[in-house]
Amino acid sequence: MNHDDSLRQIRDALRAFATERDWERFHTPKNLAMALAGEAGEVIEHFQWLSAEESAALPEAGRAEVALELADVLLYLVRLADVMQIDLADAAQRKLAINAERYPADKARGSAQKYNRL
Amino acid sequence: MNHDDSLRQIRDALRAFATERDWERFHTPKNLAMALAGEAGEVIEHFQWLSAEESAALPEAGRAEVALELADVLLYLVRLADVMQIDLADAAQRKLAINAERYPADKARGSAQKYNRL
Amino acid sequence: MNHDDSLRQIRDALRAFATERDWERFHTPKNLAMALAGEAGEVIEHFQWLSAEESAALPEAGRAEVALELADVLLYLVRLADVMQIDLADAAQRKLAINAERYPADKARGSAQKYNRL
Amino acid sequence: MNHDDSLRQIRDALRAFATERDWERFHTPKNLAMALAGEAGEVIEHFQWLSAEESAALPEAGRAEVALELADVLLYLVRLADVMQIDLADAAQRKLAINAERYPADKARGSAQKYNRL
Repeated sequence: MNHDDSLRQIRDALRAFATERDWERFHTPKNLAMALAGEAGEVIEHFQWLSAEESAALPEAGRAEVALELADVLLYLVRLADVMQIDLADAAQRKLAINAERYPADKARGSAQKYNRL
Repeated sequence: MNHDDSLRQIRDALRAFATERDWERFHTPKNLAMALAGEAGEVIEHFQWLSAEESAALPEAGRAEVALELADVLLYLVRLADVMQIDLADAAQRKLAINAERYPADKARGSAQKYNRL
Repeated sequence: MNHDDSLRQIRDALRAFATERDWERFHTPKNLAMALAGEAGEVIEHFQWLSAEESAALPEAGRAEVALELADVLLYLVRLADVMQIDLADAAQRKLAINAERYPADKARGSAQKYNRL
Repeated sequence: MNHDDSLRQIRDALRAFATERDWERFHTPKNLAMALAGEAGEVIEHFQWLSAEESAALPEAGRAEVALELADVLLYLVRLADVMQIDLADAAQRKLAINAERYPADKARGSAQKYNRL
């Protein structure tokens, strides 16, 4: 990551934020994992009664709300990775490579089957 | 974001991945929100029976598993933001600014209270 | 609840199960809440790529898998309520009464709006 | 289940509630699974910053809030089982039997290991 990489910027901002507020004591992996799941729960609440089509055509106000919910997920995700000393961008690249192997384009095309059922 | 920003790289890789597999049809916001929450659920399963201290001292094998779970969350998060045309890095910066206002360092120091109870 | 009420039977079975295995120490509300959310995450993973119609016409094998996932959610839910000394059936009846007030049939008919937007 | 079994009473109340409001159309298994996970997310938000000890000694106001969150989980769980024609009490008994086999008391005593690692 570059000095101005967005994940790195967020990580550094969250570190400073926690230090300034003496919040490191609350930021155990266990607690942050809970916060992450709680925010993911808030994301789905926006979509639970919508059809697929409605979910793809959210009014601007709803889209703006979802944007901030996704931000919450990202903030806890970056903070959790940081306190666990996990390089999130690196893990994502490794998972992308695993997925490319698990889901070869010719076998997975148009299918929502899990890799072990392809 | 720069051309080589990590969130941008992941977004572009996921776009190509979906196109090559004809997966856009599955990638509605509703479905991606579910996938995101499902992955967040897998993250917490790693920590549910651990004490705070154990969660902060995970053996290397467990840490490597969690790294790939966090990657899964990030991949669905980036993909969901992309199909909704949400700039995730921008939303995160905006949410950081909101949090800074909601949780002034002098009032929030050492407290886990929600902002509306500070 | 009667002596043979199903929620009561499950509660009693789980109490005995935990005692016999010396699991009370793991069964804090915090841990059980995580386990509950983890199981709910497993439920949604069954449905994330399905259309609404497909989700309503699951093949028998899938339906049997979901039945056991729902059972997992119920078991942790009953156990969590028990360790918190919450009467789950009573709470459900109270919430049903609240919902009946929040969503009058004539105003809520055919609408998926949240009560504060009706 | 008896006529006055609590799960059966809740199931019947929810059926009538949905019919009176013409909500069956929204109550696909997919949507109800999302609602279930969303409510589970609200449960964990109550506990995320608490220590294990604090979670076990919630003030009365917090406990009352959690009771209604658990009720929400139960209501969606019962409704989801019903639309899928799953007998929840029966599934729970079957899962209890599976768990008893997976976690023999003498092997599982005092251990939080998953059954496949015992």
